[in-house]
Amino acid sequence: MKNIGFENVTITGGFWKDQQDINKNNSVYSVYNRFYDTGRFESLKQDWQKGMPNRPHFFWDSDVAKWIEALAYILCKTPCDDLEAKADEMIDLIEKGQAENGYINSYLLHFEPDNIFSDRNRHELYTIGHLIEAAIAYDKFTGKRKLLDCMEKCLDRVYKVFIEENSAGFVTPGHEEIELALVKLYKYTGNEKYLEMAKFFIDKRGLNEKNESSNPFEPKYSQSHLPVREQTTAEGHAVRAVYLYTAMADLASLTKDAELLKACETVFSNIVNKRMYITGGIGSTPVGEAFTKDYDLPNISAYTESCAAIGLIFFASRMQLTSKDSIYGDIIERILYNGFLSNKTLDGKAFFYENPLEIPPKESKVDGVRYPITQRLEVFGCSCCPPNIVRLLATLGDYIYSTDEDTLFIHQYVSSEASFEVGSKQVKVVQSTSYPTDGRISITCTGADIKAALRIPYWCDSYAGRTVNGYLYVDLKDGETFELTLDMTPRFISADVRVNEDIGKAALMRGPVVFCLEEVDNGPYLRSIRMREDASFTLGTDEKLGVMTLTADAEKLISDVSDNAPLYFGTKTRKYEKIRAKFIPYYAFANRGESEMIVFTSVI
Amino acid sequence: MKNIGFENVTITGGFWKDQQDINKNNSVYSVYNRFYDTGRFESLKQDWQKGMPNRPHFFWDSDVAKWIEALAYILCKTPCDDLEAKADEMIDLIEKGQAENGYINSYLLHFEPDNIFSDRNRHELYTIGHLIEAAIAYDKFTGKRKLLDCMEKCLDRVYKVFIEENSAGFVTPGHEEIELALVKLYKYTGNEKYLEMAKFFIDKRGLNEKNESSNPFEPKYSQSHLPVREQTTAEGHAVRAVYLYTAMADLASLTKDAELLKACETVFSNIVNKRMYITGGIGSTPVGEAFTKDYDLPNISAYTESCAAIGLIFFASRMQLTSKDSIYGDIIERILYNGFLSNKTLDGKAFFYENPLEIPPKESKVDGVRYPITQRLEVFGCSCCPPNIVRLLATLGDYIYSTDEDTLFIHQYVSSEASFEVGSKQVKVVQSTSYPTDGRISITCTGADIKAALRIPYWCDSYAGRTVNGYLYVDLKDGETFELTLDMTPRFISADVRVNEDIGKAALMRGPVVFCLEEVDNGPYLRSIRMREDASFTLGTDEKLGVMTLTADAEKLISDVSDNAPLYFGTKTRKYEKIRAKFIPYYAFANRGESEMIVFTSVI
Repeated sequence: MKNIGFENVTITGGFWKDQQDINKNNSVYSVYNRFYDTGRFESLKQDWQKGMPNRPHFFWDSDVAKWIEALAYILCKTPCDDLEAKADEMIDLIEKGQAENGYINSYLLHFEPDNIFSDRNRHELYTIGHLIEAAIAYDKFTGKRKLLDCMEKCLDRVYKVFIEENSAGFVTPGHEEIELALVKLYKYTGNEKYLEMAKFFIDKRGLNEKNESSNPFEPKYSQSHLPVREQTTAEGHAVRAVYLYTAMADLASLTKDAELLKACETVFSNIVNKRMYITGGIGSTPVGEAFTKDYDLPNISAYTESCAAIGLIFFASRMQLTSKDSIYGDIIERILYNGFLSNKTLDGKAFFYENPLEIPPKESKVDGVRYPITQRLEVFGCSCCPPNIVRLLATLGDYIYSTDEDTLFIHQYVSSEASFEVGSKQVKVVQSTSYPTDGRISITCTGADIKAALRIPYWCDSYAGRTVNGYLYVDLKDGETFELTLDMTPRFISADVRVNEDIGKAALMRGPVVFCLEEVDNGPYLRSIRMREDASFTLGTDEKLGVMTLTADAEKLISDVSDNAPLYFGTKTRKYEKIRAKFIPYYAFANRGESEMIVFTSVI
Repeated sequence: MKNIGFENVTITGGFWKDQQDINKNNSVYSVYNRFYDTGRFESLKQDWQKGMPNRPHFFWDSDVAKWIEALAYILCKTPCDDLEAKADEMIDLIEKGQAENGYINSYLLHFEPDNIFSDRNRHELYTIGHLIEAAIAYDKFTGKRKLLDCMEKCLDRVYKVFIEENSAGFVTPGHEEIELALVKLYKYTGNEKYLEMAKFFIDKRGLNEKNESSNPFEPKYSQSHLPVREQTTAEGHAVRAVYLYTAMADLASLTKDAELLKACETVFSNIVNKRMYITGGIGSTPVGEAFTKDYDLPNISAYTESCAAIGLIFFASRMQLTSKDSIYGDIIERILYNGFLSNKTLDGKAFFYENPLEIPPKESKVDGVRYPITQRLEVFGCSCCPPNIVRLLATLGDYIYSTDEDTLFIHQYVSSEASFEVGSKQVKVVQSTSYPTDGRISITCTGADIKAALRIPYWCDSYAGRTVNGYLYVDLKDGETFELTLDMTPRFISADVRVNEDIGKAALMRGPVVFCLEEVDNGPYLRSIRMREDASFTLGTDEKLGVMTLTADAEKLISDVSDNAPLYFGTKTRKYEKIRAKFIPYYAFANRGESEMIVFTSVI
């Protein structure tokens, strides 16, 4: 299968059009401003001196790179001269700061030139990887190739040090990213050397030819516990892991490496069947920002880094092209509407690094225990997530369609138009829907009779037609409109009994959207609300938030929280009051100040 | 009120007679043997050299002391020449090891004589306190006063260093214990100097006249955050705290210090109404082995050190003499049948240091997270708990009766006989009961007509008569038998809604006994069992364990734990199977190998 790239897809209205508008009107500016304030752009000048504010960090170039990349994607559809001028300036500084020998990292060149390529944990190749992605995007969508020239020169240096000389302090990067960037660059330039480099970094991982394990969480932390083809479980730092798997999937497709593809399938299955939150979030623990073990999915301490959710979208999107199986589109959808969208405030100006599935009562928090932050921030010390969110939203069109000979695959339901070729004919597809508010989708293709394969989402039991591996195959006559209706009756979802914390509880979903309860709507002690399995929900709108709501009858413990309340008392005296529980989409939580929140609710 | 000491009380049969028999037949030997194996007794010789096993620790003298003390209590009722000879030898070594100036601590004298009384956290006064308690017991029940002489000489040194010279590196001990020992010694010898010393150490706490806060958890860790009369909440290391409060209550009674008594009442109320597990366990966190905050009572990570439960019995027993309120006897009962008895295996040979309220499925445990041990051990590196358990059981008679002019207070229901004086008459009370198997108690007093006050336990709603502050007052004619019947219908107990983890759950109690579910009886995934609030229980016996059981109809999730089971699925497809849930007393858990366990069960 071949993807229809976002540059050939226009999102024309509805849910994601709104999100993209917020992205280009707010988020890209918000990230720019906070990066500017914190000296990230200035740091390219390599002139920081003691006593100045904002001491640079060795991964700051990657923040700049991701912002440039995100901007380039926005520029593809929307001119934005003021920001483009800023990016041009940054690129000039990057070029100016590049070492004679091609090396780029404004921190190491300025502060520790003697330590270049000596420490596996300094993110040098990761940063170069992000700069490569930025360079490709900027060249492609602005026609300006200065950064691309810089990166090609830089890669000559990387090739020399790592492949020709093997003279670096390590063989493979501690933080993966360059692998997927190299594949992208190979596809963009056709230069086989970049494919060779990607293959080198992927194949060498886990062989640990140099002592690469200075970090206490290693070797799993950087997926170096086994050669990649022997890996069967998702391990270590979740972002590193999914960036690696993305590159593995790319390489497996390009080189028809069945063994590597099998490893990708096995690890993907391990993630989505045993190590993924219902929101699509991954990485259960802040300790090493990592995967832990099968079915360990705690709610309050869920780490579920925003970048990891995004990385899993990357991985799934690569896998989607290898197999006509709806699981990949299902996972992308699960993440997009939940663990991805939760990353940002509704106005797109602030972001979560971690995305907990429960915010406990403030008073129940204990000193010395780590809890995630409960309100999004505009910038973090390690601010990898915000620009990652911006670039994902700008390229959302990438995830909607792909083609295979005479068949158009429709993976995501987004009002949009796209152009593509079938045989020698130019075809235009127009998709119109109010998804996820409503499950009706209409598809019209003009230009040829074609076959279409529509993903029937995992959450939908009721639709017309028969599916093959989750896709409904239909013949579309030129100009005819096909209507698909997906039943979006709200339903409670339980977790496997091995997820110890969720036993007896369930999460409410409607269509692809996971819902939650917030204190601001339902009062304190959210765990004391219990729902009936067959609760009847009413769909509504929260005007202030501008999001869907679901309300239903429920019971809530009548609680005595006076100072003299008994600590223990006969359960028979326990009384429930009838309430109307109000659920909002999980992605919209924490937009109204500090508030308790739960996804997994007591359901009897 | 005046206590009737255990030396005047004979436990004649039933539940606690069995426990005392196990204690004197097994536990006192088991602790002796493991302390011997680990070099604790040898260490008194102060001859350890590099290369030898079992390097001594600065608190080891306290382990020896508690074992001698426990033995002395056993000797009061049961001659035991072999062990008495061992104790005599130890006391000889203690005398021999005592410094010229009276100081005793075999570790510091041998390893760090220059550091004596320089570091508040070396447990020197704590160790001396335990030796004082041992000396009193050994003198009283064997007539041998050698250790008492040593300790009086030692206390002369303590008096000089701390009170006359103020020349130590600290003013008050980091670990309380000597305060309550000094009160005991004052009462035993009548020497006012010991009362003065107790008062000194209590009154100076929290004034922090020297920099006493080297520990990161300080000043709360050692209750030094405020002068004791200003303390209102239980803080810091739980054992230290309750040892302090015990001495405070002693001192308040002796000196009629209303302000100090008020502080004791306030702190006691804070513990039992906001910071105590349903088992009577205290200390919610392993971090500093400490109290945390109101309503923070996690089940899996409950620390609830055995010594802390015992210390709370001490504290409550002192408070019991200050007020004719059944709360104190209630708390003692709650601890005895639950958080205290859980401390040891049913055969009395191994012990818990921590007493968790839930053992999760083994597979749900995650690397890097601290879990309590799941099986009792015979000895620990820090083995304070085992001898503490032995001495408490040996003195159980202390907690049953007290007298006030013409009234006999019956605090605990234990088949026993006791002698006491009312006015000038010698009275004998005979109590006969199968408690806690059954709620019928008969009381007969001979020798005089007296008044009796019988504690009506907090868990009992149904009994004949009217109570004043929880005591049922009755007139007992000489020779007449009074029958009390307490309704022991099993019932579920809920926790305050602020105990976030227990919402929607309840613990099963029958009479004073808290029950639990174990995997060995009920299969894995205990959280997937749910009970009805009005479940009807059948009382039975587990022949192998020799304990009561309660069985009732329940539901358990039918779980698919195959490798291909779906991680998330529609709650409507969730199926429960009918099971017969089998509960055993909490104190009997972990006697049949590794097993999941829960106290707070899902109750709908």
